Amino acid sequence: MGGLPRSMEDRGRRDSTGESASEERTRAWRGLRVADLSSGIAHEVRNPLNAMAIHLEVLADKVRGVGDELAEAVRPNLEAIRNQIHRLDRLIRQFADFAQGRMPGSELSAIVETSVSLCSFPMRRRGIEAEVTGVPPVSVKGAAPLALALVETLLLGVDLAQVGSKIRIHSEKESEHIRLRFSVDSPVGRPAPERMAMVGKLLEDLGGRLDVEEGPGIFAVLSIPVEPVAV
Amino acid sequence: MGGLPRSMEDRGRRDSTGESASEERTRAWRGLRVADLSSGIAHEVRNPLNAMAIHLEVLADKVRGVGDELAEAVRPNLEAIRNQIHRLDRLIRQFADFAQGRMPGSELSAIVETSVSLCSFPMRRRGIEAEVTGVPPVSVKGAAPLALALVETLLLGVDLAQVGSKIRIHSEKESEHIRLRFSVDSPVGRPAPERMAMVGKLLEDLGGRLDVEEGPGIFAVLSIPVEPVAV
Repeated sequence: MGGLPRSMEDRGRRDSTGESASEERTRAWRGLRVADLSSGIAHEVRNPLNAMAIHLEVLADKVRGVGDELAEAVRPNLEAIRNQIHRLDRLIRQFADFAQGRMPGSELSAIVETSVSLCSFPMRRRGIEAEVTGVPPVSVKGAAPLALALVETLLLGVDLAQVGSKIRIHSEKESEHIRLRFSVDSPVGRPAPERMAMVGKLLEDLGGRLDVEEGPGIFAVLSIPVEPVAV
Repeated sequence: MGGLPRSMEDRGRRDSTGESASEERTRAWRGLRVADLSSGIAHEVRNPLNAMAIHLEVLADKVRGVGDELAEAVRPNLEAIRNQIHRLDRLIRQFADFAQGRMPGSELSAIVETSVSLCSFPMRRRGIEAEVTGVPPVSVKGAAPLALALVETLLLGVDLAQVGSKIRIHSEKESEHIRLRFSVDSPVGRPAPERMAMVGKLLEDLGGRLDVEEGPGIFAVLSIPVEPVAV
């Protein structure tokens, strides 16, 4: 299982202590079970969310029955709670889709956005932002494996970027391909070769490739076959 | 990577179509990334939950300011929403802990309960219930790997049990060990040997073992070293 990527969370620990083959096997096994169970968790989370949404509307009706003044006073709170319910629902759905290797839609910009959103916590923890520029309206085949490749590349970027800096994702159209160029200012070290190799393999399965490009802070260039979409 | 368990969700598909080594590697890799990202998702989910809880209490204050009658009328809705917020928080925390190989506490009954809770969706989907009897107040070492072994055994039970039936988990104390006997009525087939082997390995790492026991519908007996806890 040498080709398996290491956990972002645990890498520091294991680099210093070493991880036995048995520990690595257990971790891989746990990962599969987590992915399996995540679809159930998404369902389990959505039931309470639905129940909350219903109770909230019943409550809003009762408040409205009393008069306009109170209804107006609680409106911002009701709105805020509704918004959070939607935000939670979206977040959980994105995560469950990713865990199960599903990705609704095929538009590149949406896939990039979802991948950035999935990595928002590891990025925020190190004060890192992603800046995406120039993604044209194109669609891709294999949205789910592409999302996995993008997530891995972003997580590599989180490791390489200075705290508080940016991961830049610049998009360039090149006949039938889009080149997504990932860069950071003053990268710390080099990306782990085994993880880069997995990104490359995923891209090759999609008919794309991982390109090498010299330039300040460029750590990965993903070349992805695309098709135009109606706009 | 032959020792890796197959996904519960996908097994049917892959048994008929076959899964290439590359697909299996991608799936294992995705599983690791899902486990990594789950801690972030738990944080991301808890922020909206906190925001909701705060807005809800502000709203409750405004309603109380108007009079007792309305406050009384909306009380059940407020209570319901508060309860769902707590339920969500607990669910997400359990899942994130499992994903990261953490398990707070060492009491066996709590670990069994959490493992059953994690499997509640796959069980409910097939109308299966878990019935746990006789777990005494004992503590275990290695709560997190034990939870993984219990989840795997429960998922094996979900596969073996008839739709609408029960997975019975019966606990017996035996000097320094607890024997957890898993059984179902009229099992469908036999548990996958590679998955049983992983359960056995996890138990051996904990100083326990997977026992063989003949008997109606018994498919796994987990022998776990325990220590008494103060009650």
